Amino acid sequence: MVGGGPGDPELITVRGRRLLARADVVVVDRLAPRDLLDELPPHVEIVDAAKIPYGRAAAQDVINRTLIEHATAGRFVVRLKGGDPYVFGRGFEELLACAEAKVPVTVVPGITSAFSAPAVADVPVTHRGVAHEVVVVSGHVPPGDERSLVDWEALGRMSGTVVLMMGVERIGLFADALVAAGRPGDTPVAVIQDGTTPAQFVVRSTLATIASDAAEAGIRPPAVTVIGPVAGLAPEQA
Amino acid sequence: MVGGGPGDPELITVRGRRLLARADVVVVDRLAPRDLLDELPPHVEIVDAAKIPYGRAAAQDVINRTLIEHATAGRFVVRLKGGDPYVFGRGFEELLACAEAKVPVTVVPGITSAFSAPAVADVPVTHRGVAHEVVVVSGHVPPGDERSLVDWEALGRMSGTVVLMMGVERIGLFADALVAAGRPGDTPVAVIQDGTTPAQFVVRSTLATIASDAAEAGIRPPAVTVIGPVAGLAPEQA
Repeated sequence: MVGGGPGDPELITVRGRRLLARADVVVVDRLAPRDLLDELPPHVEIVDAAKIPYGRAAAQDVINRTLIEHATAGRFVVRLKGGDPYVFGRGFEELLACAEAKVPVTVVPGITSAFSAPAVADVPVTHRGVAHEVVVVSGHVPPGDERSLVDWEALGRMSGTVVLMMGVERIGLFADALVAAGRPGDTPVAVIQDGTTPAQFVVRSTLATIASDAAEAGIRPPAVTVIGPVAGLAPEQA
Repeated sequence: MVGGGPGDPELITVRGRRLLARADVVVVDRLAPRDLLDELPPHVEIVDAAKIPYGRAAAQDVINRTLIEHATAGRFVVRLKGGDPYVFGRGFEELLACAEAKVPVTVVPGITSAFSAPAVADVPVTHRGVAHEVVVVSGHVPPGDERSLVDWEALGRMSGTVVLMMGVERIGLFADALVAAGRPGDTPVAVIQDGTTPAQFVVRSTLATIASDAAEAGIRPPAVTVIGPVAGLAPEQA
C-alpha cells in the first residue's frame, strides 16, 4: 500500500517508486498521481478503482477483493493511493481486509496533501509563535450532520491551524461553524486547488468572505483549505 | 529546503533525493536521516546544524546566515530537515530569512513523522467511523505554560486523534490535561520511539496509564504519541 503523494509525480517516496517499479498489478485511486503510471512497462496490469461500476460502499468491497485475489494468485500488487493511505484514504480498511485474508501488506506512507499542498503555496501549517497545533479534518459531511464525528465547536475554540480536506464546495458551512464557535471572521483562509500540480490555483480570503470568494473564483475539488493565522503569512511580508 | 522524512532513508521523496544529489553544501538537522549523507560524493560540504555552538535562538540565526552565505556565493545549498520542514520544523522561519536576503528557495515537502511513525507501527491516524479529524500538536511546552498557544481544554473535548510531537518525557502532563478536559482515561495511547528506523519501539497503553508505562519502558525522544481510538485498532483484531 503506497501513498502516491499530493499530485506531483516526484513527491512519491523513493521506496514507493521502487515498489511501484516491481508491480505486476497496480490498483490506482482517482486522486493518485496518474503520471506515475506512464513509467510502468506494458505488461503491468492497471486496475482503475475509480471506474469500478458499483455504489460507493460496494466499490470498497470490490477493491478489497481485487487486491486479495491478485495477491493470493502470487502477483506483486501495489495499491497506489493519493496523498497518504491513512489520512482519509481508507487505507486501514483495506489493510484489515487483507489481514483477514492472510495477505501480507507493507505500508509505505505518502506525502499528505493536507500539509504539502499548503507548503507549495507558501503556507506553513505550523509557525513558531503563531500556530503550535494543526487539525486536519474531513469535510465529507457538514457540521451538524448526523454522520459527523467532529466537534466543530471545540475546533472553533482553537487558535492554531485547521486544514479542511474535501468539502470545498460547501466551504461556507464550515466557515460559519468556526465563526459561530468564536473564531474571528477576519481569520485568514487559503484554498489550494490541484495543489503541487501544474494546475495549482490558490485563493486567499478570510472566514467571513471565503464562501463568496471561492464561488467567484470557481474553486472546485480537489482542494485543501487552510484556516488560521498561517494562511496570512507570506514570504513577501518578511 | 528538503524534508528528509521520518528516519528511514527511503522515505525521502524522489525530488528531495534528486536535489540532494546536486548539492554543493548540505546543512543538516539533528533529526534528519543521516544515512542519506553517506551517498553524497566527498566534495560535498556537510554542515551539521546540531553542532552549532550557540543557544537555541542564536543557533537559528547562525543557520540562517550559513544558508544565505553559501547560496549568495553561488553554491547549490540543500537544507535537509527531519520530517516535513513546515510541521514544527522552523522551515518557514528559514524561508523568510532567505526571502529577505533575496535567496530563492524551493520547498520540497517531507513525510511527516506525525503520520508516518504511527502508520509503520500499524496505527492509522484516521479511520472511517472512528476518527474524522487528527490534531498534530507540539509538546515542546506543557499545558498551562505561559508560552503555550494550545487550548488543551478544547483539544480534550475532541473525540478523534491527537498526535503529540516531542514532549514524551513529560507525557503524563499532557495525558492529565486531556483527561481533565473530558477524554476518558481508557482512551488508547500508542507511543512510537525512533519510528520507521531499525530501532523503532512501540508502547501501547491508555491515557490513565501511559506516564508509568512509558517510564517503565524507558521511552525517550524522539518519539511520537498517538492518542485516540485509532491507537487501539490493530490488524490482528480484524
